[in-house]
Amino acid sequence: MSELVTFGETMLRLTPPRGHRLSRVDQFDVHVGGAESNVAVGAANLGVEAAWVSRLPATELGERIAYALRGEGVEPLVTWTDSGRVGTYYFERGGVPRGRDVVYDRHGTPIRDATPENVATERIRAADVFFTTGITPALSSQLVETTASLLEAANEAGVTTAFDVNYRRKLWSPAAARSTLADLFPSVDVLFVAERDAREVLGIGGETETVARDLVDDYGFETVVVTRGEEGALALHDGTATSRGTYPTETVDPLGSGDAFASGFLAERLDGASIPDALAYGTATAALKRTVEGDMARVSSGEVRALVENGEGPDIER
Amino acid sequence: MSELVTFGETMLRLTPPRGHRLSRVDQFDVHVGGAESNVAVGAANLGVEAAWVSRLPATELGERIAYALRGEGVEPLVTWTDSGRVGTYYFERGGVPRGRDVVYDRHGTPIRDATPENVATERIRAADVFFTTGITPALSSQLVETTASLLEAANEAGVTTAFDVNYRRKLWSPAAARSTLADLFPSVDVLFVAERDAREVLGIGGETETVARDLVDDYGFETVVVTRGEEGALALHDGTATSRGTYPTETVDPLGSGDAFASGFLAERLDGASIPDALAYGTATAALKRTVEGDMARVSSGEVRALVENGEGPDIER
Amino acid sequence: MSELVTFGETMLRLTPPRGHRLSRVDQFDVHVGGAESNVAVGAANLGVEAAWVSRLPATELGERIAYALRGEGVEPLVTWTDSGRVGTYYFERGGVPRGRDVVYDRHGTPIRDATPENVATERIRAADVFFTTGITPALSSQLVETTASLLEAANEAGVTTAFDVNYRRKLWSPAAARSTLADLFPSVDVLFVAERDAREVLGIGGETETVARDLVDDYGFETVVVTRGEEGALALHDGTATSRGTYPTETVDPLGSGDAFASGFLAERLDGASIPDALAYGTATAALKRTVEGDMARVSSGEVRALVENGEGPDIER
Amino acid sequence: MSELVTFGETMLRLTPPRGHRLSRVDQFDVHVGGAESNVAVGAANLGVEAAWVSRLPATELGERIAYALRGEGVEPLVTWTDSGRVGTYYFERGGVPRGRDVVYDRHGTPIRDATPENVATERIRAADVFFTTGITPALSSQLVETTASLLEAANEAGVTTAFDVNYRRKLWSPAAARSTLADLFPSVDVLFVAERDAREVLGIGGETETVARDLVDDYGFETVVVTRGEEGALALHDGTATSRGTYPTETVDPLGSGDAFASGFLAERLDGASIPDALAYGTATAALKRTVEGDMARVSSGEVRALVENGEGPDIER
Amino acid sequence: MSELVTFGETMLRLTPPRGHRLSRVDQFDVHVGGAESNVAVGAANLGVEAAWVSRLPATELGERIAYALRGEGVEPLVTWTDSGRVGTYYFERGGVPRGRDVVYDRHGTPIRDATPENVATERIRAADVFFTTGITPALSSQLVETTASLLEAANEAGVTTAFDVNYRRKLWSPAAARSTLADLFPSVDVLFVAERDAREVLGIGGETETVARDLVDDYGFETVVVTRGEEGALALHDGTATSRGTYPTETVDPLGSGDAFASGFLAERLDGASIPDALAYGTATAALKRTVEGDMARVSSGEVRALVENGEGPDIER
Amino acid sequence: MSELVTFGETMLRLTPPRGHRLSRVDQFDVHVGGAESNVAVGAANLGVEAAWVSRLPATELGERIAYALRGEGVEPLVTWTDSGRVGTYYFERGGVPRGRDVVYDRHGTPIRDATPENVATERIRAADVFFTTGITPALSSQLVETTASLLEAANEAGVTTAFDVNYRRKLWSPAAARSTLADLFPSVDVLFVAERDAREVLGIGGETETVARDLVDDYGFETVVVTRGEEGALALHDGTATSRGTYPTETVDPLGSGDAFASGFLAERLDGASIPDALAYGTATAALKRTVEGDMARVSSGEVRALVENGEGPDIER
Repeated sequence: MSELVTFGETMLRLTPPRGHRLSRVDQFDVHVGGAESNVAVGAANLGVEAAWVSRLPATELGERIAYALRGEGVEPLVTWTDSGRVGTYYFERGGVPRGRDVVYDRHGTPIRDATPENVATERIRAADVFFTTGITPALSSQLVETTASLLEAANEAGVTTAFDVNYRRKLWSPAAARSTLADLFPSVDVLFVAERDAREVLGIGGETETVARDLVDDYGFETVVVTRGEEGALALHDGTATSRGTYPTETVDPLGSGDAFASGFLAERLDGASIPDALAYGTATAALKRTVEGDMARVSSGEVRALVENGEGPDIER
Repeated sequence: MSELVTFGETMLRLTPPRGHRLSRVDQFDVHVGGAESNVAVGAANLGVEAAWVSRLPATELGERIAYALRGEGVEPLVTWTDSGRVGTYYFERGGVPRGRDVVYDRHGTPIRDATPENVATERIRAADVFFTTGITPALSSQLVETTASLLEAANEAGVTTAFDVNYRRKLWSPAAARSTLADLFPSVDVLFVAERDAREVLGIGGETETVARDLVDDYGFETVVVTRGEEGALALHDGTATSRGTYPTETVDPLGSGDAFASGFLAERLDGASIPDALAYGTATAALKRTVEGDMARVSSGEVRALVENGEGPDIER
Repeated sequence: MSELVTFGETMLRLTPPRGHRLSRVDQFDVHVGGAESNVAVGAANLGVEAAWVSRLPATELGERIAYALRGEGVEPLVTWTDSGRVGTYYFERGGVPRGRDVVYDRHGTPIRDATPENVATERIRAADVFFTTGITPALSSQLVETTASLLEAANEAGVTTAFDVNYRRKLWSPAAARSTLADLFPSVDVLFVAERDAREVLGIGGETETVARDLVDDYGFETVVVTRGEEGALALHDGTATSRGTYPTETVDPLGSGDAFASGFLAERLDGASIPDALAYGTATAALKRTVEGDMARVSSGEVRALVENGEGPDIER
Repeated sequence: MSELVTFGETMLRLTPPRGHRLSRVDQFDVHVGGAESNVAVGAANLGVEAAWVSRLPATELGERIAYALRGEGVEPLVTWTDSGRVGTYYFERGGVPRGRDVVYDRHGTPIRDATPENVATERIRAADVFFTTGITPALSSQLVETTASLLEAANEAGVTTAFDVNYRRKLWSPAAARSTLADLFPSVDVLFVAERDAREVLGIGGETETVARDLVDDYGFETVVVTRGEEGALALHDGTATSRGTYPTETVDPLGSGDAFASGFLAERLDGASIPDALAYGTATAALKRTVEGDMARVSSGEVRALVENGEGPDIER
Repeated sequence: MSELVTFGETMLRLTPPRGHRLSRVDQFDVHVGGAESNVAVGAANLGVEAAWVSRLPATELGERIAYALRGEGVEPLVTWTDSGRVGTYYFERGGVPRGRDVVYDRHGTPIRDATPENVATERIRAADVFFTTGITPALSSQLVETTASLLEAANEAGVTTAFDVNYRRKLWSPAAARSTLADLFPSVDVLFVAERDAREVLGIGGETETVARDLVDDYGFETVVVTRGEEGALALHDGTATSRGTYPTETVDPLGSGDAFASGFLAERLDGASIPDALAYGTATAALKRTVEGDMARVSSGEVRALVENGEGPDIER
Repeated sequence: MSELVTFGETMLRLTPPRGHRLSRVDQFDVHVGGAESNVAVGAANLGVEAAWVSRLPATELGERIAYALRGEGVEPLVTWTDSGRVGTYYFERGGVPRGRDVVYDRHGTPIRDATPENVATERIRAADVFFTTGITPALSSQLVETTASLLEAANEAGVTTAFDVNYRRKLWSPAAARSTLADLFPSVDVLFVAERDAREVLGIGGETETVARDLVDDYGFETVVVTRGEEGALALHDGTATSRGTYPTETVDPLGSGDAFASGFLAERLDGASIPDALAYGTATAALKRTVEGDMARVSSGEVRALVENGEGPDIER
C-alpha cells in the first residue's frame, strides 16, 4: 500500500545548455517533470512510499517517463494508450535581466481523456494521502470531472487529500480556474497556494495570515499553506498560524522547487511531524532542490534534516 | 527570383547519442529536417538559389527552423501563425540487427491548414522548379487540396514541377495514397519514386525500366526517376532509360539521403546537365550526405564533382 | 513474489570516450554492471518480474547502483552496510588490433561478507528461478559457502536454480574454480557455460554436444547451455540437443552480451517456451544488447520477437 | 536594399569550457565574432535588414563565418580570396580575481588587402546606415585608406555613417590611432566611443558630457554616444545630452556587449526613435546579450522592448 | 637536482557535472589530486623545479597519475607496484545551502606500505625543500614511521622541511593525530596549519598570533603559517608576525586552494622572498586556483605577480 | 642525455566531432601534432628517452604544446619567442566516399626562423639518434639551411641521423623537394620514404625492393625503409631486404600512423633489435596508433610486443 499517491500529467523537459537560446539550440538535456510526479519523487527520496497515477502513450518516450519515476523510487501506475503523444516542454534558463522561458507543448496527451475508470483509482483509495494540482483540471473538461471524482473517492475512502493551486495562465483564465477550483475545494483537506494565486485567481488578498484564514473560512480546509516565493511560507492549521522564511540558495535550476516544498511538507506530516516541523522540512527540501538540475527533488532526508538543524550544508567532511 | 522552391513540413529532429535508447535518453542532438526543405538545402549547398514555403508557429522553436534554413542558404518563406506547434521527430539510430526507429510527433502543426492564399504561392509561380512530396498531401485533407492547387499553379506559370512519392505508412494507407497521387500526377513533370513504393502503393511492378515506362505511359511524366536503395537508380526521359549504381559508403546518418539524391539531380538539371549527368550527380550527393550528421546534405558541388569524376573522395591532401 | 531472483556483485563501470585511453582519460561514462544484476535487468525489460539480492555500502555510490536497477524495473534487495566500498571497473573499448581492456577494482566490497543471514534469502526461496554465477564464489571464501547455501536453500524450496560458469582468470585459478564449482553443481538445474570454460576449467572437451552430454552425465543438470561466442550456442535438455547460430551485429558495446543471452533464455523459459524457442530468444537478446551502450540489455520483448521472426530489425517504419 | 551595412574583420572565436585554461585546453566551443558583423547581427535580430561587407579565404572556415551570419539573418557580402587565412581568437573566460584573456591571431587575413574596388562598395552606397569601427583601420595601412574611402563614399551617397572607436592596444599605439581617427572623423555622423578611449586615445577628458561636447566641437559629429561600462552611457545630439544607467546582469559572456549596444541604438534610430529611446534600447540590448553565449546579440526586439518597459525580464510565464 | 620534493598519496578525482548528484551520476570529469602532488604542481607552474615521491600500481590508472604530473612539469618519482589499486575520490560540488560532498575511496593503495627503502629517499635528501602533510601518516601505521624517517633524513641532509597539518576527520581521531604529529614536529621547519586544526587537533586556541607563537614555543618551528579560510592567514617567523586577508573570488573549484597557498608561499621563499611577500604570493596563488577546475594550481607566476601588484586580474587586453 | 632527439614544427590540431563539417563546426577537440614530435612521443611511450627541439611563441597556446609533450614523457627543448603564432590545422575526418580533409594554417610560426644558434643544437649533438622530416625544410628557406646544418652537426658528432621524406604537396613542388632533399640525403643514415613519394618526388620507381636499392645506391643510406600504405613496408639494410605486411585495423584516427611506424622502428633499433624485428615493431605501433584518437602513438611497448607475438590484441582478460 502506497502512503502517497499523486495524479497528473508528466512531460519530457528539454533544456538547452546554459547561455544557449531555444531559437539556436543544438542540444537538449532531457529531464522528466510534472508537478504531481515531482511531489511523488520528492517524497520517495525522503523515504515515503509513493506512487503516481497517469496515462501515457505506449511508446519509447512514454517508457522514458516511467523509467525516470521507477529510478527515483516512485511506482508508476500508468494506463498505457495506443494513441496520443508524450507532452514536452522547452525550458530556457535565462538569467538577469533576461527572464526564464518555458514553451509548453501539451497537445494531445492521453491524460486529457482520463476517467476514474481508466486510471488506477483503487490505488488512490488505498493511499494515506492523495495529491493533485490545479494544472490537472486545467487540461481538459474531462479532467475537471475526473479530478473531482478522484478527490471525492479519496475523501470517501478516508484518504487525506492535498491540492496545490499551481495556477497556469497559459492554460485557463483566472475566472475559469476560480470557478472550477471552488467546486473541488470542498473535497480538499490540505491546500497549497501561492499568495499571488490566492489574490489573482481566488480573489483573496490582504496579509498572508488573513489570506490563509479566509481560505479556511471559505472552504473548510484542514490545513492551508500559503507560499510567498523568496519570502517564505505560512501554514494555518487548527487555527494556529506558523511562518517561516526561506534559505539563501545558489540556484542551479528553479523548476520544481514548489513541488519540492510540498513533498517535504507532506513527507514530514506523513511521518507524524507537527506543522512547524513540516514547514521547516518543506522549506529545506525546496532550497536543496534549487541546487540540483532537473525538476525532481533528488534530496535525501538526511540532507534535509541537516539543513533544518544547522541552517546550512555541512563543510566538506574529509 | 528563386530557381528552386519547395513546399512542405519541416520538423525538429531529436536524436540520442549513438548506442543510446529513446526509452533511456538523457540528451538529444537537435537537427532540422523535412523532405522538402532538405531538397532545398541540398540544392542551395550545390549552388542553386533555393527557397522553402511553409507555415510555422511564431515561437522560438519555429524560429529555430528558419534559422537552420537561412544558415544553409535557403530563403525561408514562412507564414508565421499564432497557434499550433512545431513538429518533432525522434530518431534512434539502431544498428544491425536492431532496426532504426523514428517516432514522429506531427500533432497540430500549422502547415495542415495551408491554403494557396495563406502561403507564398506567388514565389512558387515565379520559380524555375517547384518541388514537393507525397508526405505533404498525407498530412491533412486541406493539404490534398492545397498541394493540387500549388502544382497546378506552378504548371500554369510554366514552372517545372517535381514530386517525390515518399510514401509514409504511418500517415496513410497505400490505397488512400494511390488515389490522391493519381489526381496530382497530371500536374507533375519530374517524378521520383522508390521502386518499392511504385509496386506497393502505385501497383506498378516488374523490371525497373518497365516500372518507369509504365509510369510515363500512365501519367505522362516528362522524367521518371526510380530509386532502388543500395542498388542505384534508373531515369527515364524522352524514351531513353539510364541506370546507375550507388557508391559504397560509411554511413554516419542515413536520413535525408533520398532527399539529397533529388537535390543533386535537380541542381544538375537546373544547371543544364543531361539526364545521365544528373543521375550521377544525384547519386554522388546522396552518398556524400550519408557521411554527414543530420538530414541535410551539407555537401558542396566541388565534392560532388570530385566524387563523380574520381569515383572516390580525395586522399588527405597535404 | 518475484519470478526471477539473482545474487551477486554489481559495480560501477567507468568507460572513456571511444578512442581514448585509460592512461590519458579526462572523462568517464558511468554505467552499472554485474553479471547477476545484468541478467535480472535483461529479464525485467523482457517482462519478467525480477529482483537482485546483494550488499552495498550505504553511500551515494551504493544508491547509484540501486537507482539504476530500480529504473530498469528490477527490485534491488540490498543489505546496506556501514563500511566497505562500491566496486568499480574501468573498461577501455579498444578496437582491432588493440584488444579491449578491463581493469577491475573489487577491493573491499561488502558482498564478500554475505551470509544467508545477512541477505534476502527468503526472497530467493520464494522465487520461480534463482540465478547466480561463478564470479560470486570466486570473490571470497565466505561467498563459496554462501553461494552453496543459497543454491541449496532454493533447491529445497522448489525453486529452479540457474548458474553461469563465467570463469574469471583474474579471480581464481582453473583448479580452484573447478573444485568449488563441482561442489555447487549438484544444486544447479540449468547450467550456462562457455565451451572454452568447459574445456579449460572443467576439463571437458570434444564436440559441443559431447561437452553438454558429459556435463549432464557428470553433474545431473536438467538443462545445459553451451555457448560458443560468435559460433552460437547449443542447449541440451531431456536428452535432446538444439543448436543455433548468432546474428551478425554492429557491436557498440560487447560487455554483458552473455548475460543478455541468459536473461533471454530464462525469460522465455519462464514464459513456458520450448528449449529451441528459448535458445532463439536468448541469441536474439544477446545480439540486440550488443548494439546498446552499457552492460544492461535495454531491449524489449517486442524487439526480440521481431528479430527472431524476421531475422533482422525492421526498416525505418515511417 | 539593406538598411544597415557594416564593414570589418570577422574571426572564429575558440573558447575553452568554463574553468579551463588555454594552456591545458582539450576542447573549444566555436563562435563567430567581429565588431562590425556583431553589430549587423544584433540589428538583424532586432528586425533591421542588415548586410556585412568583408573578404574571406574560400575555405571551409571562411564558409563557416558566412554560414553563421546567414543564419542570423545578415547578408554576407563576401569577396572570396584564394589565399590568406581565417582569423581566430582564443577567449579564456577567467573570473574574479583572474582577468579574462583573449589571444588574437589575426595573421594574414584577406581583409588587410581590401580596397573599395575589391569589396561590395556599391552596397555600402545603397544603405541607410554604414557602420565600421576603429579596429578596421588598425589592421593595415591599406585599410586606413580603404576605410577612409568607404566612409567618404557613403557620405557622398547620403548614407548615415556610424563609427565605434573600439581602441585595441594590441593593434596600434594611442598616437597612431588618434592621428588616423582624426582623419576619418569628418566623414562620420554618429560616433560611439568609450569614455576611457576618449581620454587615453583621443586626449579628451573631463565630465562625460563635456567629453561628448568637445567631440562634437572638434569633429562635427551629428550624434556622439559616450559609453562608460557599468556606469551607463550618454548621448549628445542636437545639443541635448541624455544619460542612462545599465541594467544589473548575470553575465554569461561579456564579449560583444558593446557591439550589442551599438546595434540596439542604431536599430531603434533606423526605426525612427528618439535619442533617449535609442539609448534605452541599446542599453537593454547590451544587457540581454551578456546573458547569452557568444559575441552575437541573439536577442529579439520583443525581449528588448519588454526589458525597457518593465525594467526586468518576465517571470516564467506558465 | 629538484628544489622542491613532496611525498604523499595522489588519487583520481571523479566529479559529476555541475548540479548533478553522485547518486544519479552518468558522467565523471577526471582530475588528479593529492595534497602533496598539488603543492608540487603549483610550485612547478610557478617556476620551481619540483618532484613528487610516491608509490602507484603499475596499471593504466597509475600511469594516468604520472602523466598528469609530468604534464604540469613535476617529475614523478614513482615506485611502481604489482598489486594494490589507485585511490579515487568522488567530489560532488554542491552549492548553498547544500554542502559539498567528498567520498574518499583510499582502500588498498600501495603508498600504505611505503618505507624509506622502497621510495626515492635519496631525491628527498638532495632537495632544497621537502614537503609532506598530515594526511600521509594518517593512512597507515607504516606511514607514521616512514614519514618520521623521511623528515629526519631530510633534516639531517640540511633540507628545509615543510609540513601542512591538513587534518582529516575521516582518517583518524584528533587525539591520534595530535600524538603522531607531536612526534613529527621536531623535524619540521615550516608548518602550515588551519586555525581550526590548531584548536581542535593540537589543542592550541586563542588569537591567531597567539596560536602561532604557542606553536613555535611548543615545537620550535622556524616558520609557522596559520590559515583562517576566508579571513586570510598569519605567518610567524623570527618572532615577527605578518597577517594578510584573502582576495574575493568567483570560485569554480575550491579543492586544492590550501595546497595552492602552500605552493605559492614555498615557491616565493625558494626564490628568496621575504615572509610578507611569500604570504602575499601564497594568498594570490590560492585565489587564482579557485577560478580553475581541478585540484591543481594551473596558475603562472606572471598571473600571481599581477594579482599581488594590482589587487585584481587585468582587463581583457585587446 | 636523450637517446632520441627530433626537430620540427608542432601545431594544435582542431577536429570537429565525427560526422560534422568544418563549414558548420560548433566544437573542436584539441590535439597536438607534428611529425617530429609525434615520433618523439611514440618512442617515449615505448620506453625511449626522447626530446623535441623547436621554437614556439611564449603564449598560452605555445605552452599548450609543451604541456602535451611533457605529459607524454618527451622533453620539450623549446626556444620561446616574443612574436609569431602557434600553427594550427583543422582535420575533418570524412569517411567513404568523402575523403578526409586537412586545412593547414602554418602562417608565421617561429620555427621558420630557426637557426642552429637559436635552437638546442647541443642536445642534438648529444643524442643517439637525431630525427627530422621533409616537412621541416619545406617551411622556409632558412629551414633548408638549418636542417642541413643540424643533420651535419649530428653526423659529425657521431649521432645516427634518421629522416622521413613526408612530402607535402601544399608546401612545395616535387622538383623543389627533390633538389633540397638530394642535398640533405648525404647526411642521412636511416631514410623513411613512402613508395609514392619515392616515385613522384625522388623519381625512383619500379619494384619496392628496387626502389630501396636505388636509393641506397644513389645516396648511400645505411638503412632505407619504404612504406607502402596498407600493403606494408620493406626495409633494406646491409644489402638485405625484409618485407612485412600490415595488420587489419578498425581505424579511429589515421593521422600520425606513419610517425608511429617510424617511432616503433627507431625505438626497437635503439633497443638493439634486428631490422626485421624493428620492421615488425614499427608496423605494430602504427596499427595500434590507428585505434587511438589524436596524432600521438599512445601505445605501450607491452601492447606492441603482444601484437607482434600474437598477431592480435588480447581478449578481454577478466
